[in-house]
Amino acid sequence: MNAPVGQLADSMTLPQPYLLFLGDTTEAGFAKTAFGLVDWARDRCVGELAVEGCTVSTGLPRLSPAEAKAAGARSLVIGVANQGGVIGESWIGALVTAMEAGLDLVSGMHERLANVPALAEAARRTGRRLIDIRTPPAAIPIATGRKRSGKRLLTVGTDCALGKKYTALALHRAFVAKGVDADFRATGQTGIMIAGGGIPMDAVISDFEAGAAEMLSPDAPDGHWDVIEGQGSLFHPAYAAVTLGLLHGSQPDVFVVCHDPARPMILGIDGYPLPTIEEVIDLTIRLGSRTNAAIRCGGVSFNTARHGGEEAEALMAAESKRLGLPVADPIRGGAAFDALVTNCLA
Amino acid sequence: MNAPVGQLADSMTLPQPYLLFLGDTTEAGFAKTAFGLVDWARDRCVGELAVEGCTVSTGLPRLSPAEAKAAGARSLVIGVANQGGVIGESWIGALVTAMEAGLDLVSGMHERLANVPALAEAARRTGRRLIDIRTPPAAIPIATGRKRSGKRLLTVGTDCALGKKYTALALHRAFVAKGVDADFRATGQTGIMIAGGGIPMDAVISDFEAGAAEMLSPDAPDGHWDVIEGQGSLFHPAYAAVTLGLLHGSQPDVFVVCHDPARPMILGIDGYPLPTIEEVIDLTIRLGSRTNAAIRCGGVSFNTARHGGEEAEALMAAESKRLGLPVADPIRGGAAFDALVTNCLA
Repeated sequence: MNAPVGQLADSMTLPQPYLLFLGDTTEAGFAKTAFGLVDWARDRCVGELAVEGCTVSTGLPRLSPAEAKAAGARSLVIGVANQGGVIGESWIGALVTAMEAGLDLVSGMHERLANVPALAEAARRTGRRLIDIRTPPAAIPIATGRKRSGKRLLTVGTDCALGKKYTALALHRAFVAKGVDADFRATGQTGIMIAGGGIPMDAVISDFEAGAAEMLSPDAPDGHWDVIEGQGSLFHPAYAAVTLGLLHGSQPDVFVVCHDPARPMILGIDGYPLPTIEEVIDLTIRLGSRTNAAIRCGGVSFNTARHGGEEAEALMAAESKRLGLPVADPIRGGAAFDALVTNCLA
Repeated sequence: MNAPVGQLADSMTLPQPYLLFLGDTTEAGFAKTAFGLVDWARDRCVGELAVEGCTVSTGLPRLSPAEAKAAGARSLVIGVANQGGVIGESWIGALVTAMEAGLDLVSGMHERLANVPALAEAARRTGRRLIDIRTPPAAIPIATGRKRSGKRLLTVGTDCALGKKYTALALHRAFVAKGVDADFRATGQTGIMIAGGGIPMDAVISDFEAGAAEMLSPDAPDGHWDVIEGQGSLFHPAYAAVTLGLLHGSQPDVFVVCHDPARPMILGIDGYPLPTIEEVIDLTIRLGSRTNAAIRCGGVSFNTARHGGEEAEALMAAESKRLGLPVADPIRGGAAFDALVTNCLA
């Protein structure tokens, strides 16, 4: 890679700013990607576009593709998912118009953009790119294990889907607010759209998993932090390979354990209890120290969405005392989260 | 999978017996796959075929493709590798003739068979298959973590390339010689050719790594053993993701640690010392117990190719005493290897 220090290679970056496409969505839940982009990358979204029947809005101005292009947009992002993960028939006209207006298309859907004949034809005709972010970059090297310059933080978890992306985004935002030079490094599709680049780590061929993680957080200046979105769990019977490759290749200096105290069992798998936080800390240090002997736990991020405010605060205070580490819910923020941020940077 | 108990799905099995193709090879080292097949699958190899310039022989009868077909062959295996891993120009005529005689082609080369226009054309014309064993089966499920019936043994290692395949093959052969119902389960290209099926675990997308291992050793009768070829090492900074997915999905009852006592550092990676055998045992039990709480170490396999006979025997005896486990070199065999086999089956 000949990219400048701290910068990702071109093959891993998306054309920004975005025009957000909402399709014909009638439920906000299906537009999670669009809402995530407005929450975390508002400055890189110029507006939204919908087709007939859509009843959802992100609050951004509705723009035609030509207006969005004039406002600086470089791509249209499909910010919705429908059941089945396919491109809606009623979307095609708007997507073709966007390419004709000079926008590339960006999708995280299961169906590949180039498999839709009308889109493939329009891309050829207009010279626009069809970018499927589920596809990893082509030339991922085998990991070298070489220690890189700069600092790295990785979020890890007791399970999937309990706040590793959100925690990494919140820590990155807090680091930047403190004047720390930091990049958020995305490893899943929503994160990649927010960051404008990254690698879908679960789609990488396993031999190259650690190599992809090395590519994702290149050498950086001394005071720089990469805040890396974690994936899976070392204790997950299906996804631990992804987690370990990401851990080895990220060689984090600091990790934060993400946990949902209301979840007793691994999601979607029969008969596997969640590990304890101490088990995750211990195993992460043991495995992570292979590529970074100085690895340490910066604290714990709780997802307390299913707890009331006072109950959540009491739970986190008790856990913090028990573990001897900061415990915070980044969505609730407050002094506990400040303590977590401070301890990560210590 | 609807395959019978203990049997692999059709998508994972190769057409046997084989005709071994040696190309125009002049160095035995480049024909390692062919020699491996003669060593371990002699009963499924009907003969060999070479083209002008070849000076190497496996000792099997030289047969034309038509003679091989008449002798029962179902495929021609490219049993050589040249520098670059490409299909030699001078091989094409013989490979096309083999398809015309009714043989499928099987290759473990980097270059895909279908990317050679003359082979793709001949395959279309004759209806023969072009099988690249570096390509995993298409429909690998996400792992479930469900405990399967039957027994499983997995070889693990302090590093790559120190005898995990050889050890698994030797243990499988010894199990069968004792009347134990057993299958060798292959995870790399040479092993897959020997077994006549398997999954190239390092080529599987990381999200499906444990699922592929589950698919590779399906439910089996109570007394049945799957002897599974290991890959990489939990301590390898590039390949540990492959190793952990294989460990979780294989859910072994017994593992055997493979080690080269003459190797101080991880091969091909700067600055990584080999772990100790005790570290490998401890970490394998810790991680493996997530999917099989009864996992245990059956013993240690030493690759003593670089030691003299007496020195090797003394070294293994001392290590066996120190570790309290059988330590044997399967190539040397003898009482030490018998003790290893017995302890694995105990």
